[in-house]
Amino acid sequence: MSLLVVGSVALDTVETPHGKVEEALGGSAVYFSLAARLFTDVKLAGVVGEDFPEEWKGLLSEKGIDIAGLDVRSGKTFRWNGMYRGTMNEATTLGVDLNVFGDYEGRLGEELRGCDYVFLANGSPVLQRSVIRQMKEPKLIVCDTMDHWIESHRGELDKMLSELDGVVMNEGEARMYTGESNLVAAARKLLESGVRFAVVKKGEHGALGMTREGAFALPSVPVEEVRDPTGAGDSFGGAMMGYMAGEKAHGHETLRKAVAYGCVVASFTVEDFSVERLAGVTRDEVEERFRAYAEMLRLEEQ
Amino acid sequence: MSLLVVGSVALDTVETPHGKVEEALGGSAVYFSLAARLFTDVKLAGVVGEDFPEEWKGLLSEKGIDIAGLDVRSGKTFRWNGMYRGTMNEATTLGVDLNVFGDYEGRLGEELRGCDYVFLANGSPVLQRSVIRQMKEPKLIVCDTMDHWIESHRGELDKMLSELDGVVMNEGEARMYTGESNLVAAARKLLESGVRFAVVKKGEHGALGMTREGAFALPSVPVEEVRDPTGAGDSFGGAMMGYMAGEKAHGHETLRKAVAYGCVVASFTVEDFSVERLAGVTRDEVEERFRAYAEMLRLEEQ
Repeated sequence: MSLLVVGSVALDTVETPHGKVEEALGGSAVYFSLAARLFTDVKLAGVVGEDFPEEWKGLLSEKGIDIAGLDVRSGKTFRWNGMYRGTMNEATTLGVDLNVFGDYEGRLGEELRGCDYVFLANGSPVLQRSVIRQMKEPKLIVCDTMDHWIESHRGELDKMLSELDGVVMNEGEARMYTGESNLVAAARKLLESGVRFAVVKKGEHGALGMTREGAFALPSVPVEEVRDPTGAGDSFGGAMMGYMAGEKAHGHETLRKAVAYGCVVASFTVEDFSVERLAGVTRDEVEERFRAYAEMLRLEEQ
Repeated sequence: MSLLVVGSVALDTVETPHGKVEEALGGSAVYFSLAARLFTDVKLAGVVGEDFPEEWKGLLSEKGIDIAGLDVRSGKTFRWNGMYRGTMNEATTLGVDLNVFGDYEGRLGEELRGCDYVFLANGSPVLQRSVIRQMKEPKLIVCDTMDHWIESHRGELDKMLSELDGVVMNEGEARMYTGESNLVAAARKLLESGVRFAVVKKGEHGALGMTREGAFALPSVPVEEVRDPTGAGDSFGGAMMGYMAGEKAHGHETLRKAVAYGCVVASFTVEDFSVERLAGVTRDEVEERFRAYAEMLRLEEQ
């Protein structure tokens, strides 16, 4: 089924203990799409400035991502500058220039409004709700968010949760939004806000999912050298949504498997800077790692 | 096979957001034994003072734990006073009185020295090495430790690792001991110290294991209300060692399943204060939860 992602397309400057990249391809919608394209057709809606390299548009198109909804505005592309240290579980933001993304209203063309599966990548809840209102007959709408919006747009977020099917947050955000320190209790509280499922991303520790049928936890794939965690969460979301759209299903068991694919695809993302590894990965490589992951988790006799 | 644990037997005063207990039954060897007895015969070696309640000796014996090696000395029993807040992943120690445990030398009788499987629960590396030297023909010796010993007895710990088969540490200790922030890299470094396997306990996030055949990660069982995390790690170790001793095996696949049992049994421990839940749990209850856990992790088609 058709999958739409609305989110940021960025130029990232990132430093980790393993190196540094400057103005590399990044942004939530980019990582999401590059993961989702492994499972289904994906359409990207977002905005860039006139300085956005043609080469990267070419890369996205070449990977089968429909970027007809990527607006080009006069001005500069969104830039993010971050650093990872220590356990590398959280980025330290050194600088953010929203640039053209600051005024982005997310106006969608006819074709995008007809998509079945929708992911509202991290962005203002005002933008996210405007997208929800434009959709014609969506089968599943899921959003991500971040601490900034929880602090500054709590009211909009609360309203949005009742308009959604599912929500994805990282560990710290789920605790902050719900006020629950226990993550299972936090996921339960998210469900009580009106969504049908909640997924809590735990970085190196995997993810926790909850539907009305119950909670499940899955570990991350053990990765010995995490070179750059940027985009791990967005590519997790992309694989998760891509798998569900590909399966045309989003019940408890499909979600659980989708989260497993999210963990597997994210483990490729972190192996190199920017989209270096993710953009090159094939479905066969994903399936091979998925089989090893399933084997690692198999506890019943065969 | 016979399993020996040498460690602390304590009176714990613990406060969590869910309540408080005073001078309740605790100690690493106690939690370990109560978990291990679900899988195999277990013998406990340790020391208590004259103030240790007869009732609790009765409880341990009743559960089939051999406490012939539990010395009673004149003086007071080891006391620990701790508190859990927030995510409850780490205890804040408010007070420690080693009392008779401070002088404990771990002299073992003939029968205990003949045990096949040995677990050196958290204690001074000097005590732990003294136990290693007394064992006759051990098949598997595994130790736990804590930050205090890593800081104060680094040299003894280094020597001990080359005398052991396996090591269990929590997340923070593994990072501190190896200097690696990536836990997979930390586990690898532990293996390079001479052990055949390393298990890193990650509290609410489960555990990571590593043998020469590779790394594996398993999540914890989702628990919505963690009333008291005290003893979760020790009962994890008890179930893990108990399962291996019961199976008379300790290769990669047995260890992986043993770690899964560790996660399952720890999930009972945290459901109530002290040993309230753990002491009452039956093997049938463990198997039932293990089946649900295996089902949660099953990713292949049946």
